[in-house]
Amino acid sequence: MLQFDILATEGRARRGRLTLNHGVVQTPIFMPVGTYGTVKGVTPRSLEEMGAQIILGNTFHLWMRPGLDVLQQFGGLHRFENWNRPILTDSGGFQVWSLGEMRKISEEGVKFASPVNGDRLFLTPEISMQIQTILDSDIVMQFDECTPYETRGHLTTESEARFSMELSRRWAVRCKTEFARLENRNALFGIVQGGMFEHLRQESLDALVEIDFPGYAIGGVSVGEPKEEMRRIMAHTPHRLPAHKPRYLMGVGTPEDLVEGVTQGVDLFDCVMPTRNARNGHLFTRFGDLKIRNARHRSDERPLDESCGCYTCRGSTAPDGTVSGGFSRAYLHHLERCGEMLAPMLATIHNLHYYLNLMAEVRLALEQGRFAEFAARFREDRARGV
Amino acid sequence: MLQFDILATEGRARRGRLTLNHGVVQTPIFMPVGTYGTVKGVTPRSLEEMGAQIILGNTFHLWMRPGLDVLQQFGGLHRFENWNRPILTDSGGFQVWSLGEMRKISEEGVKFASPVNGDRLFLTPEISMQIQTILDSDIVMQFDECTPYETRGHLTTESEARFSMELSRRWAVRCKTEFARLENRNALFGIVQGGMFEHLRQESLDALVEIDFPGYAIGGVSVGEPKEEMRRIMAHTPHRLPAHKPRYLMGVGTPEDLVEGVTQGVDLFDCVMPTRNARNGHLFTRFGDLKIRNARHRSDERPLDESCGCYTCRGSTAPDGTVSGGFSRAYLHHLERCGEMLAPMLATIHNLHYYLNLMAEVRLALEQGRFAEFAARFREDRARGV
Repeated sequence: MLQFDILATEGRARRGRLTLNHGVVQTPIFMPVGTYGTVKGVTPRSLEEMGAQIILGNTFHLWMRPGLDVLQQFGGLHRFENWNRPILTDSGGFQVWSLGEMRKISEEGVKFASPVNGDRLFLTPEISMQIQTILDSDIVMQFDECTPYETRGHLTTESEARFSMELSRRWAVRCKTEFARLENRNALFGIVQGGMFEHLRQESLDALVEIDFPGYAIGGVSVGEPKEEMRRIMAHTPHRLPAHKPRYLMGVGTPEDLVEGVTQGVDLFDCVMPTRNARNGHLFTRFGDLKIRNARHRSDERPLDESCGCYTCRGSTAPDGTVSGGFSRAYLHHLERCGEMLAPMLATIHNLHYYLNLMAEVRLALEQGRFAEFAARFREDRARGV
Repeated sequence: MLQFDILATEGRARRGRLTLNHGVVQTPIFMPVGTYGTVKGVTPRSLEEMGAQIILGNTFHLWMRPGLDVLQQFGGLHRFENWNRPILTDSGGFQVWSLGEMRKISEEGVKFASPVNGDRLFLTPEISMQIQTILDSDIVMQFDECTPYETRGHLTTESEARFSMELSRRWAVRCKTEFARLENRNALFGIVQGGMFEHLRQESLDALVEIDFPGYAIGGVSVGEPKEEMRRIMAHTPHRLPAHKPRYLMGVGTPEDLVEGVTQGVDLFDCVMPTRNARNGHLFTRFGDLKIRNARHRSDERPLDESCGCYTCRGSTAPDGTVSGGFSRAYLHHLERCGEMLAPMLATIHNLHYYLNLMAEVRLALEQGRFAEFAARFREDRARGV
């Protein structure tokens, strides 16, 4: 099932409520990425405490490991990974595409060698639907070809982008048919492609709306294009999608990108940036980003972000009232220098909390009709520097 | 301060209560090792929840990183690492000894090159006391020479062990003098050495009791000797130490070693085994040990240990009553195979909980006068196999 209610709007921005089989998601929302059935570096408990409402899983990776037999035995991904709230899974298309020379694309689907054990494998729209049905993800993504921005220095041409977009469109139809045949009770999203060409995006969008999906994604952005190009597509496509259906901008982005995405009418975001950057000591704060390895943090007693309520910055309160946690930059700097596992653990908690809290602040601003003001203040604060 | 009250005894085993400047420790107890100011792979919150009452820090490592200026600025190790319960620090002697060819020992102390930046450094009994005073650890260990069991195939002879033990004895006097001069309000422990020679252990012990410390440790065990040799020293030394003072067996050991140690009258234990083994996928359970990488766990829906109450095995209950966590062997196997950080995180929580809970069961059995029965059952259960 999928039900989407719009609770408030301001310009193109929307405050919504998305009801799925495993629960309700308040939008706009950021979805942490849990590739292999785990959001890297955090426990499900931690995710729940920081207010994660929906997380991602990667069909391709989970198909390779642990494999479909195990996932079927567990009745899907939720029980396997101990996450009882909604899950969105991608189609596997993006990962297959990332294999580069190791894969061969045809009308039927994609042939490739397993990067885990070298087995010859074949992924088609139908097989992607079958796998995602076993995963029992609340939001299933259509199998598509992610149109590249460039290939070894060659910018994708209009005719190449058209060919790719039309292939994804035909695959969208096959996905919908197979999804129905499988009697999957979750929600299937179509994905708009078309590269950096607005008129191809419009054609893709029109075709997908004609096919009719309960939600739509914008794919093929954040694939190496310059920021202006991404912003151009973000300004073009989201608000042209059906107003009463959820809109998901795939793989985007920085905090600034998220606020811009909301301004343009996007409801759902995912990105590895908060988790990956955390593991590299790159921390997000209200007043700009911070590299914890930098020597200037060596004896700094302040938390990463004075305004942050996460375990890393403020600690947690036990049932008996004792507060624990709330770590200094000096301590985080020390952990990072020593290569201690607690460094990426605390950094991941902070970065994910930052992203989730940013979206909570966005939702509140939308409810109060002051999102434009919020966005201006946000940009100003972030530019201040930490 | 240090106050030690014996609440119950059974044979040589003792149930005690140790009051230190940062709180009360119920003994017998296992102390997780937090080398660089972090118990590898767990948050302080997690440690508190699993009932850790006292943790270790390593003087040598903390001296190198973050350095004494930072630790002094934070007023000691507790605030720096966010741990408000008692801390024990070693003297740095063991780590200096581990440097092997890179160090030169004299009557005055040990000269060595910093493994971090190559600086020429000098560690003496006085400097060790000064560093541990800055750390403000609740239990300070004397600077000693850890007598090796063998050096490149050469077994330590009696005269070598005597020479080493006598050096440590002279250093014990210097430590006590410096500790008093520094007006350190914590507790200084002496360390019994003497290698594998009972009469040398007895001489060391007599001399240390004569010097008079509030607590005593047994050092120079678990340094590569065969298990029978370790058990021989464990049977010899602990019960000969003053009955009304706490006894600490350094660097030991397996769950079986801990129960044997308690049987022999030991109160305090530390070991890297639960944390290090966790990171290698070696899990401890009531019914024996388990290698999570083993293919037989691939689709096993059971938790690591059905009788275990840790987050990994049973999950945690949020204030609103929802239970989260409680992971299958299949999921842990999957995480381990994929090299996901959550694998060592969940394994560390489990292993530390296992060790801490084992000691809680030991304490309860001692209170109820059924420790011998408990120990027999423990050995039987562990031998059963998981």
